[in-house]
Amino acid sequence: MLHITRPKLLLDQQQCRANIQKMQEKAKIQQLQLIPHFKTHQSAQVGEWFRKAGVKAITVTSVKMAKYFAQHGWEDITIAFPVNVLEIDDLNSLANSVNLKIFVNSIRTVALVKDQLKTPVKFYIEVDTGDGRSGVDAGNFSEVSKILGEAKNTSLEFCGFYTHPGHTYTASSIEEVKGISAGVVQNLRNLKDHFKDEYSRIALALGDTPSCSIVEDLEGVNSIHPGNFVYYDLVQTSIGSNTVGEIAICLAVPVVEIHPEKGQVIVHSGWVHQGKDSLVDSDGNTHFGLMVKIEEGKWSSPIPKGKVLKLSQEHGVVNLPKETFEQLKVGDVLGILPVHACATAVMMGEVWTTDGEKIEMMPR
Amino acid sequence: MLHITRPKLLLDQQQCRANIQKMQEKAKIQQLQLIPHFKTHQSAQVGEWFRKAGVKAITVTSVKMAKYFAQHGWEDITIAFPVNVLEIDDLNSLANSVNLKIFVNSIRTVALVKDQLKTPVKFYIEVDTGDGRSGVDAGNFSEVSKILGEAKNTSLEFCGFYTHPGHTYTASSIEEVKGISAGVVQNLRNLKDHFKDEYSRIALALGDTPSCSIVEDLEGVNSIHPGNFVYYDLVQTSIGSNTVGEIAICLAVPVVEIHPEKGQVIVHSGWVHQGKDSLVDSDGNTHFGLMVKIEEGKWSSPIPKGKVLKLSQEHGVVNLPKETFEQLKVGDVLGILPVHACATAVMMGEVWTTDGEKIEMMPR
Repeated sequence: MLHITRPKLLLDQQQCRANIQKMQEKAKIQQLQLIPHFKTHQSAQVGEWFRKAGVKAITVTSVKMAKYFAQHGWEDITIAFPVNVLEIDDLNSLANSVNLKIFVNSIRTVALVKDQLKTPVKFYIEVDTGDGRSGVDAGNFSEVSKILGEAKNTSLEFCGFYTHPGHTYTASSIEEVKGISAGVVQNLRNLKDHFKDEYSRIALALGDTPSCSIVEDLEGVNSIHPGNFVYYDLVQTSIGSNTVGEIAICLAVPVVEIHPEKGQVIVHSGWVHQGKDSLVDSDGNTHFGLMVKIEEGKWSSPIPKGKVLKLSQEHGVVNLPKETFEQLKVGDVLGILPVHACATAVMMGEVWTTDGEKIEMMPR
Repeated sequence: MLHITRPKLLLDQQQCRANIQKMQEKAKIQQLQLIPHFKTHQSAQVGEWFRKAGVKAITVTSVKMAKYFAQHGWEDITIAFPVNVLEIDDLNSLANSVNLKIFVNSIRTVALVKDQLKTPVKFYIEVDTGDGRSGVDAGNFSEVSKILGEAKNTSLEFCGFYTHPGHTYTASSIEEVKGISAGVVQNLRNLKDHFKDEYSRIALALGDTPSCSIVEDLEGVNSIHPGNFVYYDLVQTSIGSNTVGEIAICLAVPVVEIHPEKGQVIVHSGWVHQGKDSLVDSDGNTHFGLMVKIEEGKWSSPIPKGKVLKLSQEHGVVNLPKETFEQLKVGDVLGILPVHACATAVMMGEVWTTDGEKIEMMPR
């Protein structure tokens, strides 16, 4: 059984595996390959659950994470981050042992990387389809042409276009996600159409959890690379990617102070535990997580009006409804459903199944 | 020399020790004891620099941190967090080996703790002087009386009142900090006056970096417990606690993409590296850190208009002035002055002196 004395991140293994299974089935129906992003769970053990669901290739967000999962038997790894030429030694060593795919997003990068690679490495050109983060503007065919030209007859082998439309994360409805996603996929198809005569095999890869969760028909896309869906969270719930019941992790936190007169309790849960992400609820109020009850390692649905109002390094100020205070005492344990599962998992660095099994994560 | 291939947190040891020395002298002039909070650096090595500056007692934010520093030879430790009764075993074991002080903020807590403690332990009553976080309302003498009554003739020994006026962190001027601080100190003195007949030795303890950095005369206060000042950061700079030049840490980050047409670069620095804290500058724009140049392990003053505009898990989108782009190339290393030093240190988990010495921190 679970022994909780300080903040502990709980994982509902059954729900987590159901989330994996559901996404895998969604991919199969659309004849896409699920190449899940492992940045959310960062765990070799959770990775095995993906393997059992038939997943063979993975996505990561850093060279460090690629090395960790390569050590745990993954042989097909996409590093979904603009290649960092300073890490060329690690990239060469990875390319020796796994089927490595990197992001090369500029001719400058090609020039710097091509002569330093010791084995051929596949690359995506990451395209910016509206998020405004990294990658070549998806409409800038001439820049793409230049990169492809520079990479020709080098150790870099072009494999396709990858996009992470992060702007779906600020959508507030399923319809909005569908609209953004349709435009994003059209951008990818346009690129493929433009370059298909020159390159007979161009893969189109899409990375965001909202599109992959919500959209039924990503026509033309070859692979999806969502990460967050393994656990889901309140941000994804607010977008419409999942129900609250599909959230697979919950932060168990001790109650250290009770203030019935204010309708508040203080819990041991600060930004060092849950991360600093917040969400604005339908009343326009900011919160840092929804409160649940925990009994025998299982958590309840959210307590009405139960919210984390304020966070500091180790303190959480929690709002609870009046009727809760009758049974509540200092030393009880409550649960917090995370606003942002990736952040909470990274902050905690380990996860515990509700059966009391410790799930290790990549060492910091 | 420093070898930088991925994000690395640099520490200017000389500046850090100057910050420690300055606070220690400030305390001495006011005849206060500096009992620094170690939650910011969380490092046994940095702790030694405090010891060399004459510090004998420390403050921490969790039982776990108390254990870490007890293992590193600290014998007088205040845990500045409402006592968590679930950690009673660890507390008993700590109380056996160090002069331990805890926070007992309610009669319920006294009732739960008093019979479980195996050795006498000193306690502060934490008072809320306006921050609205933990502690008894500073004006609620009757609640304080009840706690003291409940603790009488138990293993709990009352030592004084502690407050962390976190509301100085949202102040935007030195004058505002001074105003808040004067009220806070008055609150503490009122408490002491009220209970002095019953308790001849009541210590008054104050915890925030802005007051401790800015206010010249904390009359009546016995000890100050600031933490952040060891490194300082842009939040503290904006309040007026320090100059930009007094910031002792800087995150070195590789440049992975350059977009001169947008005046932007992408760096390898996301919230997993720097934390998610932001600051609104004088133009009303939000940013996540100021950019500096790094040469031979030293960093420059901020590059005008050089700011982190946007953060995701591993990406930082950085604004840079046009003239910077002429010399800049992919694979260069830039620096980011942190918005919130505590967060950046926690996220990175280790610090490197500019001479290339690795500074370990408390294991996660």
